Amino acid sequence: MGDHRWHSSGVPAPLRTPYAVVDVDVLDRNVVAMAASARARGLDLRPHAKTHKCAEIARRQLASGAVGLTVATAGEAEAMADAGCADLFVAYPLWVDADRGARLRELADRVALRVGVESVEGAEALARHAGPVDVVVEVDSGHHRTGVAPEDSGAVAVAAARAGLRVRGVFTFPGHGYGPGSAPRAASDELAALGLAAAVVRAAGVEIDVVSGGSTPTAPLTSGELTEMRPGVYVVNDAQQWELGTCGPDAIAFTVAASVVSRRPGRVVLDAGSKALGADRPDWTTGSGRLLDVAGARIVALSEHHATVTWPDGEPPALGAVLRVVPNHVCAAVNLVDELVVTSGGDVVDRWAVAARGANS
Amino acid sequence: MGDHRWHSSGVPAPLRTPYAVVDVDVLDRNVVAMAASARARGLDLRPHAKTHKCAEIARRQLASGAVGLTVATAGEAEAMADAGCADLFVAYPLWVDADRGARLRELADRVALRVGVESVEGAEALARHAGPVDVVVEVDSGHHRTGVAPEDSGAVAVAAARAGLRVRGVFTFPGHGYGPGSAPRAASDELAALGLAAAVVRAAGVEIDVVSGGSTPTAPLTSGELTEMRPGVYVVNDAQQWELGTCGPDAIAFTVAASVVSRRPGRVVLDAGSKALGADRPDWTTGSGRLLDVAGARIVALSEHHATVTWPDGEPPALGAVLRVVPNHVCAAVNLVDELVVTSGGDVVDRWAVAARGANS
Repeated sequence: MGDHRWHSSGVPAPLRTPYAVVDVDVLDRNVVAMAASARARGLDLRPHAKTHKCAEIARRQLASGAVGLTVATAGEAEAMADAGCADLFVAYPLWVDADRGARLRELADRVALRVGVESVEGAEALARHAGPVDVVVEVDSGHHRTGVAPEDSGAVAVAAARAGLRVRGVFTFPGHGYGPGSAPRAASDELAALGLAAAVVRAAGVEIDVVSGGSTPTAPLTSGELTEMRPGVYVVNDAQQWELGTCGPDAIAFTVAASVVSRRPGRVVLDAGSKALGADRPDWTTGSGRLLDVAGARIVALSEHHATVTWPDGEPPALGAVLRVVPNHVCAAVNLVDELVVTSGGDVVDRWAVAARGANS
Repeated sequence: MGDHRWHSSGVPAPLRTPYAVVDVDVLDRNVVAMAASARARGLDLRPHAKTHKCAEIARRQLASGAVGLTVATAGEAEAMADAGCADLFVAYPLWVDADRGARLRELADRVALRVGVESVEGAEALARHAGPVDVVVEVDSGHHRTGVAPEDSGAVAVAAARAGLRVRGVFTFPGHGYGPGSAPRAASDELAALGLAAAVVRAAGVEIDVVSGGSTPTAPLTSGELTEMRPGVYVVNDAQQWELGTCGPDAIAFTVAASVVSRRPGRVVLDAGSKALGADRPDWTTGSGRLLDVAGARIVALSEHHATVTWPDGEPPALGAVLRVVPNHVCAAVNLVDELVVTSGGDVVDRWAVAARGANS
């Protein structure tokens, strides 16, 4: 993995395991590939910034042709506006009180802003506290989290318009594509739900121009009948995407550098636990994370400061060896650190702040 | 839950869900009860500060009679030394290089410091880079994470002494007590393993005075034949402890305040996801978290910014309602925030920094 020397004139803190690393060469390839793939289908690309929360990565996505960014919270929107993004979509049914309304109003005065809505009351509270902002109606396409049934999208759109909001379109998150072999069905559900919702909203007399979907697993399958897609994880990928087959290890740009602190036949324990990697472990994953350079290794137990890794054939590495860990869910892992160590060709070339870390509200 | 007014003369940022809350009245009861319980058995209490990472909570534990604190990393030790703790045990088999060695040396010059060791190479690296510090040999009592078999503790102790370290004793973490009905067996394993290890070390000619165990589930059962115990979670508790029966809801001092953002018959979605609660979900838990005030409610799905909560009998609360969420694992949840909002009798009375947030190395 090269050695992580700092080779600028600055004198940053020493690298201490566990620390988060982004390989900028892999990152840049992922950014360009997704932009080209969206362009080829005539889709606007609006990457979800919750994955990286980082101004430098956001700017790379925008420079490669993303039309804007997606965010999950008002705080993420503020951070990405500060990073220079002029077009933001809060794809979340925020509950808006006076404080959050004032923040959204201020954002809408700085950038092109859209906010998700999925209830009549939510739309009315947004209008009352934030004034006339653009909204997009959230539709449930099968993930069953938030979003109205497509048939009910017209009522929300009409109520939002009546409250003084500008209804731009419909959106969904096909999160039920996270599972082995699930992406084709989720992409098909997404297309059907958004198509129906758009027709229902238009039939209710509301003109719209945004039909927005997409996730990393479904991104290659997102139909050109939509107007935009919002994948997030693709920019650096993670062990879930590796196991779903959405990417290979060569497209994984984010790892956590961890030291071997304990060693037994067939296994090692690393100093990166759930406080460095996150604790996501869907049933279908083969462990709590993987090693980038040892395809057969698996994290079989994870506590706060320990990862127990089973080792495939051969001798496990020595105490003190530094390994590259791939977390299951990169969005959670990034949110645990204040800084990303940036490497190119194995050398440390920069450090980037995780500007929106913890910006959950 | 009262209303969270700030009633000092300061003007802090408004409270925005999701935010982390500590009920100081419940906290103080937990602190006093555990101190009394340890004292009654003649055990030194050395609470694990990884749970709270907070100077104000550490000081309360020390004021109530804790002999010192346990930490997991050099960074946590530095933060707790800064908080005024004069006696620290890094109960972790650190891999020590020149940088970490210098930090430990500096700590050992400020406070009474002990460090965990579980291998000959680890002890030698520690001695080489940190000089003569106190160490405690880690023993595996059945959790099978780190630690040597009790029979092998003598070899590590002798090697450590030969390297110039001062061997103080033996310790274990009976983490296999985390499971329904598992605590009695784990406490018994702990006693047997530590008893054997202490005998083996003494038989090898190394004089020791520390026999250290304990976890929150086993704390009521920790034998007075040990010299100290190191529970962490007890200070605020969490949904895991509630479900294990280690505490009732009246002893839960930590919650995350979250708003209802979506509502359907029988369920609500809250704006606190895994980025506010952590994603721990052991097989034996009934969900990804609970509500303090609604015993039948369960978080049945958790994504980064959404918790889907099934509602028992009756009408779910309105959009915008603020609920108190109990995360499964409080140590992970605290590590996600920079600040704890402190309440007493439902009123906000203070805000405490999570001084060691992210101090993983």
